[in-house]
Amino acid sequence: MEIILAKHAGFCFGVKRATQIAFEAAAAANGDGTYTLGPIIHSPQVVRRLEEMGVKVLRDLSSLEKGTIIIRSHGVTEAEISAALAKELRVVDATCPFVKKAQEYVKELSSQGYDVIVLGDHDHPEVEGIVSYASGNVHVVACGRDIDPLPKMKRIGIVAQTTQSMEHLQDVVSAALTKGTEIRVYNTICDATSVRQNEARDLASRVDAMVVIGGYNSANTRRLAEICLEIQPNTHHIESDEQLCAPWFAGCAKVGITAGASTPKWLIDGVMERIAALVEDKKD
Amino acid sequence: MEIILAKHAGFCFGVKRATQIAFEAAAAANGDGTYTLGPIIHSPQVVRRLEEMGVKVLRDLSSLEKGTIIIRSHGVTEAEISAALAKELRVVDATCPFVKKAQEYVKELSSQGYDVIVLGDHDHPEVEGIVSYASGNVHVVACGRDIDPLPKMKRIGIVAQTTQSMEHLQDVVSAALTKGTEIRVYNTICDATSVRQNEARDLASRVDAMVVIGGYNSANTRRLAEICLEIQPNTHHIESDEQLCAPWFAGCAKVGITAGASTPKWLIDGVMERIAALVEDKKD
Repeated sequence: MEIILAKHAGFCFGVKRATQIAFEAAAAANGDGTYTLGPIIHSPQVVRRLEEMGVKVLRDLSSLEKGTIIIRSHGVTEAEISAALAKELRVVDATCPFVKKAQEYVKELSSQGYDVIVLGDHDHPEVEGIVSYASGNVHVVACGRDIDPLPKMKRIGIVAQTTQSMEHLQDVVSAALTKGTEIRVYNTICDATSVRQNEARDLASRVDAMVVIGGYNSANTRRLAEICLEIQPNTHHIESDEQLCAPWFAGCAKVGITAGASTPKWLIDGVMERIAALVEDKKD
Repeated sequence: MEIILAKHAGFCFGVKRATQIAFEAAAAANGDGTYTLGPIIHSPQVVRRLEEMGVKVLRDLSSLEKGTIIIRSHGVTEAEISAALAKELRVVDATCPFVKKAQEYVKELSSQGYDVIVLGDHDHPEVEGIVSYASGNVHVVACGRDIDPLPKMKRIGIVAQTTQSMEHLQDVVSAALTKGTEIRVYNTICDATSVRQNEARDLASRVDAMVVIGGYNSANTRRLAEICLEIQPNTHHIESDEQLCAPWFAGCAKVGITAGASTPKWLIDGVMERIAALVEDKKD
């Protein structure tokens, strides 16, 4: 049986960078008084490894008076950064540079008097962070239809959650054109998502089983699993190798593997080894 | 037989204003040394009336050394305005304020370093005028497909010929989103066009014959005629009442009338009277 790993499976640039920054900060502090605000990335395994190094995950800063706070790849709200600085905590910013761009664009558009529209999932931490940089009106929309109830606006600024699709952005911009005279769009979509999705689509059509690896709290991994499932019914979304079942691979000539942007390489390697072992066991 | 005139048939705001300015300028100068650069509006009859008052239509300014030059409703190029001023001609600007806005937006976008895309008919005088205000790269496109061969651009500014449709603008903006990171759109489409088209569509579906009045060189009149023809095969585009034929109205209970944005009221009135007379003649 052949196991094929998608070329761009796993860590994207921003996640790789954030993870590296977090492990370096943890090592430097010997884990002492080091925290992340929310999980550093949407990978339970990476979070656990950091915890083993003494890095604790905080839900908010209320109880923290000193130490190092690492800002997660998805970013946090402007108020949270301000609070951390006001408490004179040491802030290590691991926000993905592409997310940071989106935050900066919202701040710029808002300060220039634009009503801001953010295309994204309104309860996603990345979107909550981006939205917080608006000083004036701001609306979160998931699609063009969400624009319909909005009032007419003079100047509309639009940015997108970095993991959104181009089709969604086109839909939202088309709707916004009916609402205002000036529309200024910053396309903050990161290519990594569409590249990974296109690869998954292609791979799923060429194999007899697909395994998608990543946290159940990772939106981009869930989307990858949906895409693969549409093409290959024998698709399974797992968080770790312990969830693998031998019957999934019975009679399969080819098994495809992909992983979300926050899935570490060692986890992918582990899954691949375990699948190979499961298939070997069956042979015995 | 009932003759129904569309509510918004004929002169739009910009054409009414330009015609008024031209007749006032002609009257003030007693027609002496007064010119328009191209036809003041796309109505042969209005142009002829102005000619009877001594206002001549020039193709360019090369032969003109003194006098008053009236800038037509569609506007002219920046170079032509500059040439007129350099020759110390008296410039009477009858450019439609909505077209002027589009010219100003192109100038602003271009000076701020945007590559400019103008949605419009590349050989229409309005578009030629708008485009001339770009100091950097500028592309005229008729639809989204025209964007495909363009290179990647960093910042894209988009404006539209005032008579374009919202669907065309949405199509072009969607395509432009794949070409650059920042897209800044000024929606310079004038509602008058869509209002007149929607009325024509409605009227054509309720009558037994449609008459569309306006110059054959008027793009918006031709578009009106096309729209009506799709719904009512007994549709006729005429420039004046002399072209009316009695058989068009044989057996008709209702006749609908609409007219392009540059068709004067007296021309519409004349057509309506003539249709009534033709039908009366038949009865005798």
